[in-house]
Amino acid sequence: MLSKNQIKFINSLKQKKYREEHNLFIAEGAKIVPELLASGIRVKQVFATSEFLRKHKIANEIERFEIKEAELERISSLMTANEVIALCEIPSYEIDPNSFKEKLALVLDDIKDPGNMGTIIRIADWFGIGNVVCSNNSVDVFNPKVVQATMGSIARIKIHYTDLRSFISEQSELNQLPVFGALLEGENLYSKKLPSAGLIVIGNESKGISEEIQQLLTDKISIPSFSHFSQSGGEAESLNAAIATAIICSEFRRGN
Amino acid sequence: MLSKNQIKFINSLKQKKYREEHNLFIAEGAKIVPELLASGIRVKQVFATSEFLRKHKIANEIERFEIKEAELERISSLMTANEVIALCEIPSYEIDPNSFKEKLALVLDDIKDPGNMGTIIRIADWFGIGNVVCSNNSVDVFNPKVVQATMGSIARIKIHYTDLRSFISEQSELNQLPVFGALLEGENLYSKKLPSAGLIVIGNESKGISEEIQQLLTDKISIPSFSHFSQSGGEAESLNAAIATAIICSEFRRGN
Repeated sequence: MLSKNQIKFINSLKQKKYREEHNLFIAEGAKIVPELLASGIRVKQVFATSEFLRKHKIANEIERFEIKEAELERISSLMTANEVIALCEIPSYEIDPNSFKEKLALVLDDIKDPGNMGTIIRIADWFGIGNVVCSNNSVDVFNPKVVQATMGSIARIKIHYTDLRSFISEQSELNQLPVFGALLEGENLYSKKLPSAGLIVIGNESKGISEEIQQLLTDKISIPSFSHFSQSGGEAESLNAAIATAIICSEFRRGN
Repeated sequence: MLSKNQIKFINSLKQKKYREEHNLFIAEGAKIVPELLASGIRVKQVFATSEFLRKHKIANEIERFEIKEAELERISSLMTANEVIALCEIPSYEIDPNSFKEKLALVLDDIKDPGNMGTIIRIADWFGIGNVVCSNNSVDVFNPKVVQATMGSIARIKIHYTDLRSFISEQSELNQLPVFGALLEGENLYSKKLPSAGLIVIGNESKGISEEIQQLLTDKISIPSFSHFSQSGGEAESLNAAIATAIICSEFRRGN
């Protein structure tokens, strides 16, 4: 049975301010919570149905609360509450500038949509890109909607928030990393020889890559469009940010 | 000024039953409506702010209603109402079996999420894939959320609903089209020589491609994962349906 204070506390974590104050985030559902339990993320409390608790091994140091479906609904962020909610410690990854050497990393210049952010982290995971560096104005990755959309990938990818300009400048200098970004006038992604290390910058959903960051790109690329349905007027003007990320990452990893 | 009956009528079109009864769908916003006005889609009525009406040429045969922002909110499906709502005729594209000859087409096996459906139509548009064939159980593409997510591509892509089994069998026979589908045990997409014509089957978000349709595939493919963060437990298990669609379409179009 949950106390009023517990309900209030958990619901407060849907706001960034309280997540930062308590250094905790919410993860929810029978798919993600077991992944977090098995990961390096520190789970502090688990609120779950008796069925979930019966099926999953939960380490002794984690506080557990058996609750009913109806109680779960009162703390859930989902349309349909799903077996379990966990409160987890927000991991803090220091940016070790040397850890970017000879690797690919994604750099997000103000991604605002929680669904896009979650999907991009899932894409990074799929393509073995271990670091995602976000501008300070990007949506908070510990927002419950983002956590949900990552489908567990949040446990595997290191996500950093920082000033992109200093970060990119530092990496260009220290590790000689090339800096890729998709722009309309960029070089055809499909015919360019792509390296196995570098920074891939993804721009904001409506504004693209900011002027300031564009100046730091060493390689401007573009995803060619094949849209040609001219008789019906117009053509596809852009791809969603997460879709563009997927196509670019796929191209980097496929080999030539 | 909108009458109560108009408000009721427009809101009824958020339900598939009434869209079918009146053969109308709703499009909304200053980005999509002008694209529809310029397209082959037949726009019947436009409800817009005076500013929108001043800026856009609207053909004489289209009924127009100047309304205030506050009225727009009462008929909007969006979080923030946006200048204009149009009622458009649902186009009916007969499946001409010969029109699939020597072309790529997407085949959607029960795509259920409106955001995914809209994004997939936008991807089809970007990659110049003019036909999207949906199983009868896929989400209705004229659902306002889907219309919105297509960002105007709905005006350019022919979308069909039909029994997939008969459609695929017919196309295999009539046009000798190969039938591609992503499965875990499929061939590496990156090393396979891909043709310029064929059917690309995309499976349901949680169940993938149904057994019945799997039997009709001539080419099983897979998108290799590079996820290898083993120390933190687990790895990315799947890609979102729209993301997988983007990667596959990109591979088909990029050339080898």
